Amino acid sequence: MSFAQRVAEGVVAKGNGVCVGIDPRLESLPASFTSGIDSRDRAAQASAYAAFGKAIVDIVAPLVPVVKPQAAFFEQLGAAGMTALADVVQHAVGKGLIVIMDGKRNDIGSTAEAYADAYLGRGSLSAWGSDALTVSPYLGSDSLEPFVKTCAQREAGIFVLVKTSNPGSGFLQDQLLGAGPNRGTVYQQMAALVESLNHGHEAACGFGQVGAVVGATYPEQLQELRGIMSSSWILIPGYGAQGGTAKDVALGFRKDGLGALVNSSRGIIFAHSLSKYKDCATWEAAVERATKDMIAELSQHTTKPFRSW
Amino acid sequence: MSFAQRVAEGVVAKGNGVCVGIDPRLESLPASFTSGIDSRDRAAQASAYAAFGKAIVDIVAPLVPVVKPQAAFFEQLGAAGMTALADVVQHAVGKGLIVIMDGKRNDIGSTAEAYADAYLGRGSLSAWGSDALTVSPYLGSDSLEPFVKTCAQREAGIFVLVKTSNPGSGFLQDQLLGAGPNRGTVYQQMAALVESLNHGHEAACGFGQVGAVVGATYPEQLQELRGIMSSSWILIPGYGAQGGTAKDVALGFRKDGLGALVNSSRGIIFAHSLSKYKDCATWEAAVERATKDMIAELSQHTTKPFRSW
Repeated sequence: MSFAQRVAEGVVAKGNGVCVGIDPRLESLPASFTSGIDSRDRAAQASAYAAFGKAIVDIVAPLVPVVKPQAAFFEQLGAAGMTALADVVQHAVGKGLIVIMDGKRNDIGSTAEAYADAYLGRGSLSAWGSDALTVSPYLGSDSLEPFVKTCAQREAGIFVLVKTSNPGSGFLQDQLLGAGPNRGTVYQQMAALVESLNHGHEAACGFGQVGAVVGATYPEQLQELRGIMSSSWILIPGYGAQGGTAKDVALGFRKDGLGALVNSSRGIIFAHSLSKYKDCATWEAAVERATKDMIAELSQHTTKPFRSW
Repeated sequence: MSFAQRVAEGVVAKGNGVCVGIDPRLESLPASFTSGIDSRDRAAQASAYAAFGKAIVDIVAPLVPVVKPQAAFFEQLGAAGMTALADVVQHAVGKGLIVIMDGKRNDIGSTAEAYADAYLGRGSLSAWGSDALTVSPYLGSDSLEPFVKTCAQREAGIFVLVKTSNPGSGFLQDQLLGAGPNRGTVYQQMAALVESLNHGHEAACGFGQVGAVVGATYPEQLQELRGIMSSSWILIPGYGAQGGTAKDVALGFRKDGLGALVNSSRGIIFAHSLSKYKDCATWEAAVERATKDMIAELSQHTTKPFRSW
């Protein structure tokens, strides 16, 4: 089954479009994972990240359809961190989750092929065994082609950065390009490219293998981009800790409650340190409650996802 | 000593601005590294990449100042590949080479900090121990700040993608932005950003820690960008195999023969398979001759680098 369709089935089955971001940071991990670890000992930290990441997966797997490990925090620990990353991905796939590797990779020609080969495809299909990869589009349209090709071969997906959640995303992404009827912002042109790559390749659910990243911190643009990219899954970071609300991200969904994957990282995985969850008996209980709370918040502003095909 | 100054000293000492790209591909490696390896055995391939990468380092270390491992080809082999990458970086630093990690990484806020922490800084300063990292700027100016800060703390550098060597780089990079006197292309505005980040932070040689990537395949833009970014080292891919010539890349140098690092990957590391070098007795001899030939070609079009400060 194509990536886009698998995401749709997962969202319908779980009844929500929540994506849990696995972004481990030593200073934020529950004490049980870090006691006795020297912050200069990268191998010990990597083991803690693997154990924590897998524990998060165990808690959220019955509740949400998708997880998104952030490669940077594992790379920070060198090769040992990358071993931990592979371990977390494999565990998540084993638990029936869809895994989006957040690596924001890209390069040209055969090097882009290498990144696609590295990250796209479950199990032994690729070295990292993830279902999808976030991709940066600065290099241009041809740099996306190797990814698109590999997606089709391996039932995988990509999420192209279109409008990112950071305050400075406008520096490039909001600038106006072109002339006459084609005049538009960088993010609009990227959205049109993303949509064109899905054209004619939509799964039964109506979405194709090329998704987009649009930050929850820009709700107006999210609504606009939902319109431009009617065939794309939109991965929405910036919920919660960065300021995006359930009302904001509701603009990224289609009327059948599909089309958006709303990511929360810190707000879920480090819930034990939030005052809101200080009465939870364990860190695991805090993660579970935070996940359920996020699902409930989203459901107040969006239709419960249903099979419209 | 700052990264920019170390590069300058290295280029003057070796008498050239050649960067050797370490881009291993199983099908192109000399047979001695690959005999008996099953292409599905990623760990065995990773060992071959490490051995080959280190052998390349041994050959080129007396001749050139800089090497640039391409992360993608190592990531393609999963965690075992990343162990091989760390091994090659450490070996190159030990041989006195400056190491630019070609990862084209970036993200926002604390995630960009994690990438900076991962790759910038020699030895135990960072997990990967490299001197510099290539960085993609789609996320905007604020996404570069964590890298700039870490560069200053660790005598490291970054190379920001400005105008890349691929045929489709114009899709975004050549588009016109803005209005009136500020009207310019995306690559011109990125170049202005790069230059501004070095302003007031130039080392004795005149360059700062923020470099730029400009493809040899666009000589007109290279000349223009040398003018806009007078304080930046320019890393020039696209020489040789991609079509850039010594005359083209000469436009990226300052009058003292400094300011550009010209990368060749396939044309050097896989020289044994080029008809030009078929009379070489060993693959190592082919690599050595190809490196010396490239140095000689560049010297016909550029001033021999000298200490102008």
